[in-house]
Amino acid sequence: MNLLDKFKQKDKVALSKIITLVENQSPGYQDILARLYPYTGKAYRIGITGPPGSGKSSLADRLTFNLSNQGKSVGIIAVDPTSPFTGGALLGDRIRMQDLATLKSVFIRSMASRGSMGGLASTTKEVSLVLDAFGKDYIVIETVGVGQVELDVVDTCDTTVVVFVPESGDYIQAMKAGLMEIADIFVVNKSDREGAQSMALELESILDLKRKENGWEYPVVSTQAINNIGIEKLLQKIFDHRQFVAKNGFFEKHRREQIKSEIKKLIEHKIKEITEKRVEKIFDIEKIVEKILLGKDDPYSASERFLKEANLL
Amino acid sequence: MNLLDKFKQKDKVALSKIITLVENQSPGYQDILARLYPYTGKAYRIGITGPPGSGKSSLADRLTFNLSNQGKSVGIIAVDPTSPFTGGALLGDRIRMQDLATLKSVFIRSMASRGSMGGLASTTKEVSLVLDAFGKDYIVIETVGVGQVELDVVDTCDTTVVVFVPESGDYIQAMKAGLMEIADIFVVNKSDREGAQSMALELESILDLKRKENGWEYPVVSTQAINNIGIEKLLQKIFDHRQFVAKNGFFEKHRREQIKSEIKKLIEHKIKEITEKRVEKIFDIEKIVEKILLGKDDPYSASERFLKEANLL
Repeated sequence: MNLLDKFKQKDKVALSKIITLVENQSPGYQDILARLYPYTGKAYRIGITGPPGSGKSSLADRLTFNLSNQGKSVGIIAVDPTSPFTGGALLGDRIRMQDLATLKSVFIRSMASRGSMGGLASTTKEVSLVLDAFGKDYIVIETVGVGQVELDVVDTCDTTVVVFVPESGDYIQAMKAGLMEIADIFVVNKSDREGAQSMALELESILDLKRKENGWEYPVVSTQAINNIGIEKLLQKIFDHRQFVAKNGFFEKHRREQIKSEIKKLIEHKIKEITEKRVEKIFDIEKIVEKILLGKDDPYSASERFLKEANLL
Repeated sequence: MNLLDKFKQKDKVALSKIITLVENQSPGYQDILARLYPYTGKAYRIGITGPPGSGKSSLADRLTFNLSNQGKSVGIIAVDPTSPFTGGALLGDRIRMQDLATLKSVFIRSMASRGSMGGLASTTKEVSLVLDAFGKDYIVIETVGVGQVELDVVDTCDTTVVVFVPESGDYIQAMKAGLMEIADIFVVNKSDREGAQSMALELESILDLKRKENGWEYPVVSTQAINNIGIEKLLQKIFDHRQFVAKNGFFEKHRREQIKSEIKKLIEHKIKEITEKRVEKIFDIEKIVEKILLGKDDPYSASERFLKEANLL
C-alpha cells in the first residue's frame, strides 16, 4: 500500500512522512499536495502569535486539550524561531504536556521557521493543508510574533489570537499598529502578574475605535494558561469569531484570497528558480561585479540588460 | 540647475528630495541610482539592531556625535517598525538629541519599514547608497531586531552591532542563534541595571566558541548610552572591526556579494511585476478559484499550467 493510501486510512506514520516531504520540499511534494487538495477546506485554523515568553505554547496546549475533550481532533503546528544561517530550530525549551502528546486525536509538529520569507516557515501553509486533508477539525498554528510573521499568520489562519503578557509593554509599543490590525482576539496571559489589569484596560481603550468598524467585538481575554484559567472563555470567543466570519461571508472571502495568494506564491517561486538559472547562463555575473566595482557599470543598468537579453521585457 | 547637479554640490535639500524619490520608488528612481552608483563605495556602514526598548536610538546618536567630533560626516537611517497594513511609521516616541540634528555634518532620516520584505525597509539599501554617493563617511542604520530583519542588516552593513538590555533575556532566548550569527559586536546597554553583568557574562561564555572560528574577538561592550558611558570603547571596537574586515579581504568579499544580491533582487522584483500582469492577462483567476473551491482544480496544477501557457517553463 502506498503512502497516500495509508494517509487516507488515517495512518499517523504516513501523515508524518508526508509532512516531512512537504516541509523539506522534497521532489514530488507539489504532486502530493495537488492530490490531497480535494480533501482540504474543512479544518478551522487558529493562529496564536505574540512575543517570546508570552506563553503561546501553554495556551495552544490548553486550547487543544479542551477541544480534544469536546471530541475534536487537533493538529498543532509550532513554528520555532531559527537561525537563518544554521537552519536549526530552538526546540529545546519546549516542554509539552505529556498527556497531550499521547492523545490519539492530537498531532503535534514543530517546524523551524527557516527565516526564508519572514517568521512563518515557508511551508507552514502547506503543512496545514496536509493536516486539513488528514481530517483534523482544528489546526492550531503557534508562532513567535516578530515583525513580518503576523502577516503570514493572517494569511494562513481563520482566527488570529495575539497574546501579550504584562511585561510586553515595549513590544506592544513597537508592534502596536501591526498587531492591532491582525488580531481577532487579544489575550493578556499570566494575568496574575502586576500590570496585567492595566494592560487589559489599555488594550480595551485602543480597541474601542476598531470595534465600530465591522461589528466584531475584538474581545480581550485574561488568562493564566499554566493554571488553566480563562481557557474556556478564550475558546468560546474563538467559536464566536468562527460564527461571525461564517455569517458575514468573511470566511469564504478569506479562503478565496488564500487560494489566490497561494497560486501567486507558487508561480513566483518557480519563476525565481528559472530566473536564477537564466542569470547564470546568460550573465557572467563575476565580470559584471568587477565592472561595477570599477565604476563602469551599475546594478540597475545590469538588471535591465539581463531582462532584455532574457526576452522578459 | 537640476536635482543631480545640486546633489553633487552637497545640497542637503537635493539630498532629501532624492532620498524621497528613492524611498517611494517614484518613476525614474532607478535611473537616478544608476547615475549615483559610480560615486558610491566609500562610506562605511554600521548596523545597530536589537529588541524594542534596548536604546538603539540613543546609542546611534552617541556614536554619531563622537564620529562627528572626529570630523567625520554621518548619515543616520532609522528604520521604524510599521504596520504592514497602514504603512504609517511609529516615529512618535523618537526624541532625537537637538544638538545632533543641528550638526552640519549629520543627516538623519527616518524610514518606515513597510513590512514589505522583512523588517528593513525595502529601500534601506538604496537610501544608504544615496548617502554614500553624497559623501558621508559613515552611515548608521538602526533597526528593531525582530526576526528576519537581521539578515537584511547583515546584507547592508559592514559592521553589525547587536544591542541587548538586562531585561531582554526572553528575547535572547528566542533569537539567540540568529543574533549570534550576525553580530560583530555585542552591546549590553543600560549596564547600570540589575542583571547587566550576568548577561554580559552569559554572552561571553556563548562567544568563546565563536571566537576561535575566524580570528575576530566578538567583543561584548557594556554601555549606558544616555549617560554617554562606554561609547568611546564601542567606537574603538567598530574601528577595530573595520580594520579586521579590510585586512582579511572580508570587506571586499562582502561588497561583491552585496552587488550580486542587489542585481538578483532587482531582476526578481521586475519579473514579479511582469508576472503579475501576465497572470491577469492569461489567467481568469476567479474562475480557477471557483474550480478549486469545488475540488476540480488545485493551486499546484494551476500554477504549472500558467507557467506553460506563459512560455516560462
